[in-house]
Amino acid sequence: MSTNRKKQTFRSKDRPYSKSSFKSNSKSKPKARQGKMPKKAEKPSVRVSFLGGLNEIGKNITLIECEGDMILVDCGMAFPDGDMLGVDLVIPDFSYIEQNAAKVKGIVLTHGHEDHIGGLPFLLSKVNLPIFGTPLTLGLVENKLREHSLFNKAKLNVVNAGDTITLGCMTVKFIHVNHSIPDAVAFAIHTPAGTLIHTGDFKIDCTPISGDTIDLSSLAKEGDEGVLALLAESTNAERPGYTPTERTVSDSLNHLFSQAEKYRIIIATFASNVNRVQQIINCAQKYGRKVAFSGRSMVNYMDVARKLGYLEVPDNILIDLDMLNKYPPEQIVLVTTGSQGEPMSALSRMAYSDHRKVMVGEGDFIIISANPIPGNEKTVGNVVDELLKRGCKVIYESMYDVHVSGHACQEELKIMHRLTRPKYFIPVHGEQKHLRKHAELAEFLGMRRKNIFIGDIGSTVEINADYMKEIASVPAGKVFVDGLGVGDVGSIVLRDRKHLGQDGLIIIVASLDVYDGHVISGPDIVSRGFVYVRESEGLLEEVRLLALHILDDCAEKNIHEWGIIKNRIKDEISKLISQRTRRTPMILPILQEV
Amino acid sequence: MSTNRKKQTFRSKDRPYSKSSFKSNSKSKPKARQGKMPKKAEKPSVRVSFLGGLNEIGKNITLIECEGDMILVDCGMAFPDGDMLGVDLVIPDFSYIEQNAAKVKGIVLTHGHEDHIGGLPFLLSKVNLPIFGTPLTLGLVENKLREHSLFNKAKLNVVNAGDTITLGCMTVKFIHVNHSIPDAVAFAIHTPAGTLIHTGDFKIDCTPISGDTIDLSSLAKEGDEGVLALLAESTNAERPGYTPTERTVSDSLNHLFSQAEKYRIIIATFASNVNRVQQIINCAQKYGRKVAFSGRSMVNYMDVARKLGYLEVPDNILIDLDMLNKYPPEQIVLVTTGSQGEPMSALSRMAYSDHRKVMVGEGDFIIISANPIPGNEKTVGNVVDELLKRGCKVIYESMYDVHVSGHACQEELKIMHRLTRPKYFIPVHGEQKHLRKHAELAEFLGMRRKNIFIGDIGSTVEINADYMKEIASVPAGKVFVDGLGVGDVGSIVLRDRKHLGQDGLIIIVASLDVYDGHVISGPDIVSRGFVYVRESEGLLEEVRLLALHILDDCAEKNIHEWGIIKNRIKDEISKLISQRTRRTPMILPILQEV
Repeated sequence: MSTNRKKQTFRSKDRPYSKSSFKSNSKSKPKARQGKMPKKAEKPSVRVSFLGGLNEIGKNITLIECEGDMILVDCGMAFPDGDMLGVDLVIPDFSYIEQNAAKVKGIVLTHGHEDHIGGLPFLLSKVNLPIFGTPLTLGLVENKLREHSLFNKAKLNVVNAGDTITLGCMTVKFIHVNHSIPDAVAFAIHTPAGTLIHTGDFKIDCTPISGDTIDLSSLAKEGDEGVLALLAESTNAERPGYTPTERTVSDSLNHLFSQAEKYRIIIATFASNVNRVQQIINCAQKYGRKVAFSGRSMVNYMDVARKLGYLEVPDNILIDLDMLNKYPPEQIVLVTTGSQGEPMSALSRMAYSDHRKVMVGEGDFIIISANPIPGNEKTVGNVVDELLKRGCKVIYESMYDVHVSGHACQEELKIMHRLTRPKYFIPVHGEQKHLRKHAELAEFLGMRRKNIFIGDIGSTVEINADYMKEIASVPAGKVFVDGLGVGDVGSIVLRDRKHLGQDGLIIIVASLDVYDGHVISGPDIVSRGFVYVRESEGLLEEVRLLALHILDDCAEKNIHEWGIIKNRIKDEISKLISQRTRRTPMILPILQEV
Repeated sequence: MSTNRKKQTFRSKDRPYSKSSFKSNSKSKPKARQGKMPKKAEKPSVRVSFLGGLNEIGKNITLIECEGDMILVDCGMAFPDGDMLGVDLVIPDFSYIEQNAAKVKGIVLTHGHEDHIGGLPFLLSKVNLPIFGTPLTLGLVENKLREHSLFNKAKLNVVNAGDTITLGCMTVKFIHVNHSIPDAVAFAIHTPAGTLIHTGDFKIDCTPISGDTIDLSSLAKEGDEGVLALLAESTNAERPGYTPTERTVSDSLNHLFSQAEKYRIIIATFASNVNRVQQIINCAQKYGRKVAFSGRSMVNYMDVARKLGYLEVPDNILIDLDMLNKYPPEQIVLVTTGSQGEPMSALSRMAYSDHRKVMVGEGDFIIISANPIPGNEKTVGNVVDELLKRGCKVIYESMYDVHVSGHACQEELKIMHRLTRPKYFIPVHGEQKHLRKHAELAEFLGMRRKNIFIGDIGSTVEINADYMKEIASVPAGKVFVDGLGVGDVGSIVLRDRKHLGQDGLIIIVASLDVYDGHVISGPDIVSRGFVYVRESEGLLEEVRLLALHILDDCAEKNIHEWGIIKNRIKDEISKLISQRTRRTPMILPILQEV
């Protein structure tokens, strides 16, 4: 179920514009035929629809359509907000893709982060589209699809950075970029209407830990040949300056390793940050420590990264978590998940003495090599506090340079704009404030306001040499995944959960005589999450007597319509409870006929 | 109910130490008598108990006990964490104060913030203790007590900074400090055991907007005469350097007012920050704008501050919110609550088009003159995004210097330590990380580790000239206020709320024959917050059939013990639901006898 589905939807028949489908049909027509058309109609257009990633963090997915062919860039998921109670994860509304499945030539992936690939299993279980990505990205996709038993029929196609693939009327060049996971790429999408550049997530790292610096030359070449539109990520658009190179972390780690001589070192970081783990392994080797991995995703990611050659591990340095106690603390580095304070993560379990294999205490030197993602500050802070209470040394947040971002800051974004010199610009990947800042940055660089589009999910723009204009939106929204259920939790369910979670509920059950409606059994009062019952027996007895009075009164007055009786119970008991407690628990009358 | 109550409680009779009570009794004995006692027992001790404010933000309350006399420093409340569902606010467990009410000579208040005075109505409704505070602080307390109909019998005593009061065997000197609310004080508490300094919340502002710089001279004098122990706040103990003067905000505001020429200006800030509002009013006057207040607490605070002379308002500058539309936007400044993104606040209502009197849009220049308190980053971000989407200009977070902290950073804390030169040090007001950092700072200044105590709520230390040692804890905890209920929501209710909020519930209702237990009516299945029922009819029918099967089976097997029947229903239906959905809603079987 989509909770944020756009009102405007359209089928291909009643689209308000038909240029694109005309062009598509006209491909086989002779050139001369076209000469008679007014010039304006001749220029091909490309349509870009945003199914996710705008005005939200995560769930990145962009649809490019030209001459009847479609390609998808990324297919991510998002983590639920605090008000999405019980929801495990959020995926895009795929209905527009399902409707147009036959036109979709493939999904191209920029990199292997969850907010770019996490939606794939849910899309593929509906439409089995071919997927194109770099080796590490597809390695991670493979793991994910195996978990969902979707791998066997999946159509995965490895593409190396620098290569170009053809998808219908478009070609897509994979351009190497730096990011907090190896093997990330941007795309130059060559369409009949012109070239689109989609940066994916990127930063400019002139001294990366592994691989090359972002392929500035290819980006420059696209710029020289003419870029119709740039779609660039906006995560750090509010931050001035440059994002430091990943290599700065090495210096800090070396410094901390030398400080932590007699301690066991525990480092929490993102499981996907292969280069970070590489640096930790390098330090461990230098300081004569063994390395163990903790946390399911850490183990999985490192497996894939090693297998594909993205992580270089010296012989005999890795040990199993079970072997920890065979070594003195000063010979150990434990690399763990939980840098965001996630309640079920390895680091949280250690902090709350709930980890099966690792007990932490005064002998531990703990480094949180990550910044809290907005919204996680409090949980990270709580984990840090618990670790400190146990006597651990804890290095967190910006105490040392133990973390750098994977996203471009303002100066890097400016370089991307200057290299590609697009005619039109669409900031992507960010909340409104990020998109606006990025738009302001483009204006500052000289682009005209009208050549910039700030969209929302569902937004669709049509772009050609003459204009960029917003056209009717496509269906887009947030689909909630809760357990095995995809889309069966919607706004009504969430509203009820919120209500129940805030004030609990009071259930009034009674059996009524099928003939005259008089009470045969009950009313019984059951409450949960409302008050501590033993201390509120008086109030609940009051509720019971009021319910009984209402039921008797209805029977006497020959009111047998259950809707009416239930509403009276709800209204009057709500009023009583509110007067007594200023609370509004859910009131649930249940009547049975006997 | 206290959810975090310490196990160790003790009545005065079985205290593990009796020095203090001995001294108390010995006060009237002749001096010569004391000469015969061993020297060690002669030195009087003071006991300090922390009922709140350690390992938490807010709920600050400290109990000082000497020779049988007690005084309380502050009586605050805290805001609930995200996992305290439905809880409105959190107050200290007052049971230890109630037990010792006769000994308590008074409550001294450092300043008028909620985390220092918000618990008063709840304490006073149990024990009517005399209260001592500066004029503005008591003005705010008066408002609060009136709301709770407690003002008439309250014993409020105005004390000006610089004055000293006597409370039993102790005297308390009120020492002026700078903070983000006027009329804040620290205390020099002179006890028979020596002098304690409690800083309250403070910063060192050498150019305050109103009033004087913190009374460094009095603090120095106490230091010269000898300070037994320093209790100093730790909020900013992690931040190096100095907190800038409140006056820096003036420059930024002037700059922004000149930029915002043609816009209506809306500024959100803390209602208690009288000096901030003063600066806004000064700017408004300079730029020829009228000022309106929005938000109940903003209106209330400004009323009190004006009445008591803490806010200087030029004639004819204030207008009522209803008059906004009589003036062009460029002649208006609206000062509002909601700087923390609180859902019901005025600014949030404006952002979500839910404010009765103020519509915002492209003509608005909005300044959020506050930083998000940890945990509020996401809600503040959402409000900013909504305002941006409506086309407002928004200045937020650290974009300009539109906010400064009210708390001392490391260099200011060092000055406090150097001025008072205490023998012992107890960091207060902060989470573990703040307390630890502050303790490290004291060590860096040369204090020995063993002279520093990092406590928890309930912790009690005994201090005299020879030692500071931790003794048995006193009862302390978190008491939840929900609506009119104080303490009737505890861990069981919260656990149920969390369960209901995460996965919802399924109710199974059936009427059984009183004689043979066979099903007369039902089972009926009612669910809330679980799945969207219309899309899951099949699953709920499965649940119904399973419940019916269990009930029939029990009747057949002559199982009439309802506990057993209900448990079977719970277990088997939980299992079914988990298999089908991987969710764990609350299963609530309700049986009635007919």
